Amino acid sequence: MTLERWIPLLGWLKGYRAETLARDGLAAVIVTLMLVPQALAYALLAGLPPEVGLYASMLPLVLYALLGTSAILAVGPVAVASLMTASALAGVAEPGSAEYVGAALVLAALSGLMLVGMGVLRLGFLANFLSHPVISGFVTASGLLIAASQLGHILGIEASGHNLLEMATSLFEQRDTLNGVTLVMGLGVWAYLLLSRRYLKSGLIRLGLTNAVAGLLTRAAPVSAVIVTTLLAWGLNLGERGVALVGEVPGGLPALAMPSLESDLWSTLLPAAVLISLVGFVESVSVAQTLAAKRRQRIDPNQELIALGMANLGAGVSGGAPVSGGFSRSVVNFEAGAVTPLAGALTALGIGVAALTLTEPLAFLPRATLAATIIVAVSTLIDLPAIKRTCAYSRADGVAMLATLLLTLFHGVEGGILAGVALSLGLHLYRTSQPHSAVVGRVPGTEHFRNVRRHEVETDERLSILRVDESLYFANARYLEDTVMALVARQPGISHVVLACQAVNLIDASALESLEAINSRLRDAGVTLHLAEVKGPVMDRLEQTDFRHELTGQVFLSTYEAWSALHEGSQPAHGGSVAATGFDP
Amino acid sequence: MTLERWIPLLGWLKGYRAETLARDGLAAVIVTLMLVPQALAYALLAGLPPEVGLYASMLPLVLYALLGTSAILAVGPVAVASLMTASALAGVAEPGSAEYVGAALVLAALSGLMLVGMGVLRLGFLANFLSHPVISGFVTASGLLIAASQLGHILGIEASGHNLLEMATSLFEQRDTLNGVTLVMGLGVWAYLLLSRRYLKSGLIRLGLTNAVAGLLTRAAPVSAVIVTTLLAWGLNLGERGVALVGEVPGGLPALAMPSLESDLWSTLLPAAVLISLVGFVESVSVAQTLAAKRRQRIDPNQELIALGMANLGAGVSGGAPVSGGFSRSVVNFEAGAVTPLAGALTALGIGVAALTLTEPLAFLPRATLAATIIVAVSTLIDLPAIKRTCAYSRADGVAMLATLLLTLFHGVEGGILAGVALSLGLHLYRTSQPHSAVVGRVPGTEHFRNVRRHEVETDERLSILRVDESLYFANARYLEDTVMALVARQPGISHVVLACQAVNLIDASALESLEAINSRLRDAGVTLHLAEVKGPVMDRLEQTDFRHELTGQVFLSTYEAWSALHEGSQPAHGGSVAATGFDP
Repeated sequence: MTLERWIPLLGWLKGYRAETLARDGLAAVIVTLMLVPQALAYALLAGLPPEVGLYASMLPLVLYALLGTSAILAVGPVAVASLMTASALAGVAEPGSAEYVGAALVLAALSGLMLVGMGVLRLGFLANFLSHPVISGFVTASGLLIAASQLGHILGIEASGHNLLEMATSLFEQRDTLNGVTLVMGLGVWAYLLLSRRYLKSGLIRLGLTNAVAGLLTRAAPVSAVIVTTLLAWGLNLGERGVALVGEVPGGLPALAMPSLESDLWSTLLPAAVLISLVGFVESVSVAQTLAAKRRQRIDPNQELIALGMANLGAGVSGGAPVSGGFSRSVVNFEAGAVTPLAGALTALGIGVAALTLTEPLAFLPRATLAATIIVAVSTLIDLPAIKRTCAYSRADGVAMLATLLLTLFHGVEGGILAGVALSLGLHLYRTSQPHSAVVGRVPGTEHFRNVRRHEVETDERLSILRVDESLYFANARYLEDTVMALVARQPGISHVVLACQAVNLIDASALESLEAINSRLRDAGVTLHLAEVKGPVMDRLEQTDFRHELTGQVFLSTYEAWSALHEGSQPAHGGSVAATGFDP
Repeated sequence: MTLERWIPLLGWLKGYRAETLARDGLAAVIVTLMLVPQALAYALLAGLPPEVGLYASMLPLVLYALLGTSAILAVGPVAVASLMTASALAGVAEPGSAEYVGAALVLAALSGLMLVGMGVLRLGFLANFLSHPVISGFVTASGLLIAASQLGHILGIEASGHNLLEMATSLFEQRDTLNGVTLVMGLGVWAYLLLSRRYLKSGLIRLGLTNAVAGLLTRAAPVSAVIVTTLLAWGLNLGERGVALVGEVPGGLPALAMPSLESDLWSTLLPAAVLISLVGFVESVSVAQTLAAKRRQRIDPNQELIALGMANLGAGVSGGAPVSGGFSRSVVNFEAGAVTPLAGALTALGIGVAALTLTEPLAFLPRATLAATIIVAVSTLIDLPAIKRTCAYSRADGVAMLATLLLTLFHGVEGGILAGVALSLGLHLYRTSQPHSAVVGRVPGTEHFRNVRRHEVETDERLSILRVDESLYFANARYLEDTVMALVARQPGISHVVLACQAVNLIDASALESLEAINSRLRDAGVTLHLAEVKGPVMDRLEQTDFRHELTGQVFLSTYEAWSALHEGSQPAHGGSVAATGFDP
């Protein structure tokens, strides 16, 4: 039972049948067809040799199939992780060099260790640091950056850069190297992909195919573009006419090897590995949950951390780059009818076959074709209306989203996402730094107390009752100090302050220090501090502290009890506003 | 009225009288006597020439007197800020060099700009990032580090280092340079200060002095040690016997000059300036609030940001290092009877007189005397029992405190405080990442609903009502998704989920996305999502979103209304647990 929790494979393998194998196998074939060009393209996007993409699509998929809780999630190289990899490795080594590839393996292994560690320690909540607006702004910006980075390949220009400005400058400076043949082919593939996305499915259905089959064939349109342009490049010898091709891809399976253990490299890559892990995890879980829900299945986020982590560790020891769950391939996997994680393992088998047999023809694949494929694929990541929607719903969230988006576009991926996280946290602290609280008075003739600003209630100028409506912790503790001291400074005749704590679920050490400060400052000012309606668990903790003994006043069970004791006791003559209402008990 | 808010001086100066001047003047004389040696000592602690301490005690004090809201706070060089300054400048230039002094001015100006900016933008809440346990652990560690850094001066050894290990290693390596005369003098002053702290006050009272006068004289004990040891050093020519003296201090007032505007230096010092500003602000406000409360006065934290910021800007343009409000000098100022901020301005005048007349004798002041003074002064910062107290009260807070303390001691001040802040935030997110929520059922025969785990209530296997007990925002939004999906996976016959939102004050954009995800996933699973008891302001915002239109179910005013509609409508035969209770309406 416990072993099955750690290795979900043991659960689903027991009931495995031949017909399930047929469905998983079909899904694997379709996903493999889609994955071969994507694996090459995302490796090139990350500045890595194309075979790294194939290597990242073998062992990691098998490990995820063994450990993952999602039957559908298609793990492997993905666009955003590749962009982040390129950015992380930019300062470390020359793209394409052996050190660069070595650093990519370290990045994968480091991401894997982070994810497994977070899973074992059940730290999945750390992904909460990435709020939806930050992720959304970041993914949109990444999509735009990736599309911009591929423009050069379509134009036949060798461009570079890690933000929009650098890319635009580089494109402009190298404009003389534009290659007409490449441009025609790139635009042709782009147009074909756009048109097939819009019209192919309905056309196929009109030809008599079922909806499902037509949908899958449409998704496989890039494969036909890959085949046709590869044949063209080979037949017309386009490589000699200046068209950039993928070039020699070493055939065969990757060798297993430990990544470099150089500690300097590890510590340099650590921040990037944290971001890649968290972004990959958040995106994977979101895809997996959405697809699992369609079949009323559940995924376990902490187990997903371990499975994705092991997949990345696998990439690190088998020549691959960081991997994560891909959105489009997972959807295809789902639509093609994958039933168990075995579909993923079979996909790995398919990629292995491709690596053993297809590398020679793939050398003739034009890079412009891959660029057009990537541009069309990442266009689904770009969600500009979400900006307007988020800004309209909440200005604070809109600011965090826009800041992430703009910084990612014009500064770089790491700065962008970190600024977004810092801003989200800052805005959250700001929102919670002023806890709801209200000075309350007694509803005449009852035991109820209500906000003095909103209701006609009895008050007493020698007594102030402050109802605290939230848990007290470091972000709002100082505001409470300010609020109470302001109350006392405003009401010179005051001699009792009661904090009514019915909504306080927690008082952390900072808030305890603030209560101690409030107590001693009030004592210095000749005012007594009382508490009322303190919840059981909160009171249990307070009982063990010095504060409980130093508290100048009492702890009342109810606000009414506090009112009766302090109001009657201190003011037997029924003066002030109370006498005026005539409702004193 | 508005002008008075920005320049509080205009308020208190109107009613100023001769007798107030006498009281402020007396306080200023006593604080000046205390400040002269402290100013020299803290400048040396920061690795700066002694006169920088004097310069930091003139213009900054005048500016604070003009703008501050505390009548008592004694601004100037303080121990913790000096330690942080030394740490920030360590990598920038050689201690004592002109570049080092220049960088200190930049640090002061940068801190000043940060504080003024935060004040104008009313960003004082950012200080909430520093929780009490983090500040407390950091201040204790700083006290220990400062004391350790002064041991070398007492032993006559030239030691250095920015953490305990480095300091211990340096002391050990230089042990041969120990100077006996310095050691005797250092230990002598130390013992005198400790003994005077314990016995002088009661002795003076026994001699017939009043409590207040005896207290002030006791606080001035370091002054007598300074005078006696300076005379000894001068008379016995101790400088030639290897006793380190303060040495030549340029007399006169500081020249006004812009600090360096080199952008590299500014960006290097920015992180340190942020930390110095925040720590200084938090400590100053805490001292000022404690002392203000004793006279039932109030300080305005946002105006304090501006006043402390202008004081630091003043330090930056008049040759001074970063300043902040000092605890011990503020207490003396209070006890000596300071009534208005003019006491601070008069202290600046006193320091100016000292800079014009006392620099020659001060050159003979032994550094061992200053070291003993510092050690005794910072011993009040060290609060080791607080560690035990905090750990006993809350393990999470204890962990944050210990991590800050240990990292500050053994790694460095900046790493220590940043780790503490990160840990506090992480622990806070962890605590709030799982919002209180409960599946509720109907209390038979009533319109009340209670937790199914704690009460005997009616439930319906086709309907699940989840009461959400907290506001929904990015840190807990994903947990809600998990909770709802787990609920549905557990209860196969379910066809309605109701979220009862009576405790939800806020739904941020992340939580809105989560609600949308929950809605569409439930729809895919054939389950309808309803809301109940949504508060007015929350509903107003939801009304403008797509979610409102995509919601598969209804928004009910009350949980009971939801129960009646869904329970009756879906199950006219009264099957299941409801029929068993026999209380169906």
